[in-house]
Amino acid sequence: MLRTYNAPLVRIYWKILSRPARTGLDICKPVVDGYVQQGSVRTFIPSSRLNKMSDPRFDELTPCDVSDGLLNKYKIDNGGYLPNLTQWSGHSKGTIHGKAYTVLFAPANDTRPSVNYIDSVPQGAFLVIALTRDLQLPYAPYVKPTQAVYGGLMSTRAQYLKAAGTLVFGRIRDLKEHKSLEHPVFSYGVGSCAAKAAVKPIGINVPLEILTSNGEVEIIKPGDYMVGDANGIVKVPSEVELDSLVGYVRKSVEADELVTTDIKNGRPAKEAQKDRRATLKNYL
Amino acid sequence: MLRTYNAPLVRIYWKILSRPARTGLDICKPVVDGYVQQGSVRTFIPSSRLNKMSDPRFDELTPCDVSDGLLNKYKIDNGGYLPNLTQWSGHSKGTIHGKAYTVLFAPANDTRPSVNYIDSVPQGAFLVIALTRDLQLPYAPYVKPTQAVYGGLMSTRAQYLKAAGTLVFGRIRDLKEHKSLEHPVFSYGVGSCAAKAAVKPIGINVPLEILTSNGEVEIIKPGDYMVGDANGIVKVPSEVELDSLVGYVRKSVEADELVTTDIKNGRPAKEAQKDRRATLKNYL
Amino acid sequence: MLRTYNAPLVRIYWKILSRPARTGLDICKPVVDGYVQQGSVRTFIPSSRLNKMSDPRFDELTPCDVSDGLLNKYKIDNGGYLPNLTQWSGHSKGTIHGKAYTVLFAPANDTRPSVNYIDSVPQGAFLVIALTRDLQLPYAPYVKPTQAVYGGLMSTRAQYLKAAGTLVFGRIRDLKEHKSLEHPVFSYGVGSCAAKAAVKPIGINVPLEILTSNGEVEIIKPGDYMVGDANGIVKVPSEVELDSLVGYVRKSVEADELVTTDIKNGRPAKEAQKDRRATLKNYL
Repeated sequence: MLRTYNAPLVRIYWKILSRPARTGLDICKPVVDGYVQQGSVRTFIPSSRLNKMSDPRFDELTPCDVSDGLLNKYKIDNGGYLPNLTQWSGHSKGTIHGKAYTVLFAPANDTRPSVNYIDSVPQGAFLVIALTRDLQLPYAPYVKPTQAVYGGLMSTRAQYLKAAGTLVFGRIRDLKEHKSLEHPVFSYGVGSCAAKAAVKPIGINVPLEILTSNGEVEIIKPGDYMVGDANGIVKVPSEVELDSLVGYVRKSVEADELVTTDIKNGRPAKEAQKDRRATLKNYL
Repeated sequence: MLRTYNAPLVRIYWKILSRPARTGLDICKPVVDGYVQQGSVRTFIPSSRLNKMSDPRFDELTPCDVSDGLLNKYKIDNGGYLPNLTQWSGHSKGTIHGKAYTVLFAPANDTRPSVNYIDSVPQGAFLVIALTRDLQLPYAPYVKPTQAVYGGLMSTRAQYLKAAGTLVFGRIRDLKEHKSLEHPVFSYGVGSCAAKAAVKPIGINVPLEILTSNGEVEIIKPGDYMVGDANGIVKVPSEVELDSLVGYVRKSVEADELVTTDIKNGRPAKEAQKDRRATLKNYL
Repeated sequence: MLRTYNAPLVRIYWKILSRPARTGLDICKPVVDGYVQQGSVRTFIPSSRLNKMSDPRFDELTPCDVSDGLLNKYKIDNGGYLPNLTQWSGHSKGTIHGKAYTVLFAPANDTRPSVNYIDSVPQGAFLVIALTRDLQLPYAPYVKPTQAVYGGLMSTRAQYLKAAGTLVFGRIRDLKEHKSLEHPVFSYGVGSCAAKAAVKPIGINVPLEILTSNGEVEIIKPGDYMVGDANGIVKVPSEVELDSLVGYVRKSVEADELVTTDIKNGRPAKEAQKDRRATLKNYL
């Protein structure tokens, strides 16, 4: 079956083939069990994969809970946290989560053609947009362009396609529309002007390089699992087995609920934490 | 007729006469069809001009709409956007807009005398306050002084004089009072301490130089038309003919409303945008 | 009487003994009329001091009011303002205030042992947490680590111990819990990951060095009086006599209330301020 627009895209594995200098971009080869869309090429995706963009068990977990798991069980020092993002809309929806469907924006004079990313957001996916590294800053406002790369029409379409939410490492506009739609949108900041004079989308489902404020670079790959709320966004690397992570995190949440009850009953926090979290080592 | 306090000020044209080194200030000559106030000189303004500080057609337009017009029709790449401002109050008033009544603050040891700007805010004007360039930063918090240059008493007076709103490229204080008055106030940040030990107002209706986070400098001239909401603030340069801008923007808004309806009916966003916006080129 | 956990701590005077290079930390000797806790040493505090962590007269004053007093009466140019903090919770509680109970976090590989600070927060105190100076930045996000040094369990315990609020010169997590508890929490930013891989608490009731965005360093000593609301946080140095400060600030507030009434009746702001504030010089 050949799909035209509206084809949900899934890419599970990827390989970096080359890193052209000064583009901040990796040229990657997708390796999937179906076909994928890259730029203007439209292809088949097995319908069996459609429901794998979202795992309902994360409805009950916060990014803070998930970070506890990534830190304690997987020894990821920053707990997968992607700093300095604000949630502007969709607060009523609780934890926002889904596999990353990534989009890369490059300077408008980049030689690669512009791509249509918004009409192919997979159902359940977390739409993640970033700029090339040369347009990023390690301090606020975190990106150089003052233009907004995402707006109300895009949220209208993303919501129609049943995306989980949108994350922009840059500026967004049309705050009122995102709130009115209750479509969850996260970004570094806001703007008012469309971005076409500054940047354009040139890659779909490519890895994104995020320069963080502690000077490190985080890579977001298609298929990484994104979890967010007002505290910000956590990335679960695609290498982490979700069953195993969720199993640990649930035990961790249970332990901390007991700690809360202990504290409210007057028990010292340190003692309660040590006691109630003791069993967690069995789940590492 | 000679006016004392409360005289609304209008200046439509201006010319830079000189740029004293290291002051961040332009010395300008106002060219108007009436007289103007500059520093402590109080003069007559024809009453026929009073209603020209505000154009009610902007009630129906957002800064995002206006940026679309400035970008597409006037080829202003950033759509007039002045980045990194927060709206703290007056959200119930919809779009905030009016001609800029500008005030420049310089270091407290500047040799020029302090001026009284707050008692001469024109009806309908957007009060715009900035610091000299040496006090600005291209990254958050965007200004060096931690003191607030604007507070609740100033909003009380600005509202009495029927100003449209206040925009401070710096810090403001007394958040609760601005909210309680529902007087629209925008700024880079907040503070608690009056600024008299750090800065003082030394110029009224002079051009303001704003260092933005992409390293550029935007000039706000008296008479530029300012449009703001929670997305931030857009400057329409006084050279832009408002009739022509509003005409285009209204058509642009109409087209995007059709795109929204299309998307909600399942039409791909890219196709709907291309189709519905096709007629806009007739209004360029 | 020997206290174990839950002992409220008071330290009124302190002296810097040495400043180890590259630690950003001062080694101080507490000088008090009782004993104090430092690190793991638990000691006696006279119960007569317990009620001195909080002064109810500040319930009626805002940080802006207090800054006016520090600026005008004590010639503190920045009015004691500690910039770039956000209040995330506890807004219903009005002005948040209390004497600083300070906690210093150092890099996780610091040789000093970790201390338990949360079980000894004194009743009425303002819990103030900062990182060593090498982990601070003069621009947003103001700290290098992306991890959160404070979370919901800590607020649960701080509230049980009747702390006034929590101020973190860094990131906090569990926004929803702080809001749900209505425990007032201020910080530079948010996060999701516990901080144990990055930093650890190594000193209680030691002075904190805060690098501010104007390039200066503010010292917060245990016993400094902290006052905060949505406008941010003001520090009243312990050298300032509170009776004298409050006396002046009350007169200043009274004068400004008259100015507000004047302005609402149409009187020019400048004239009203000059007139109504004239008597304040009698209270300097």
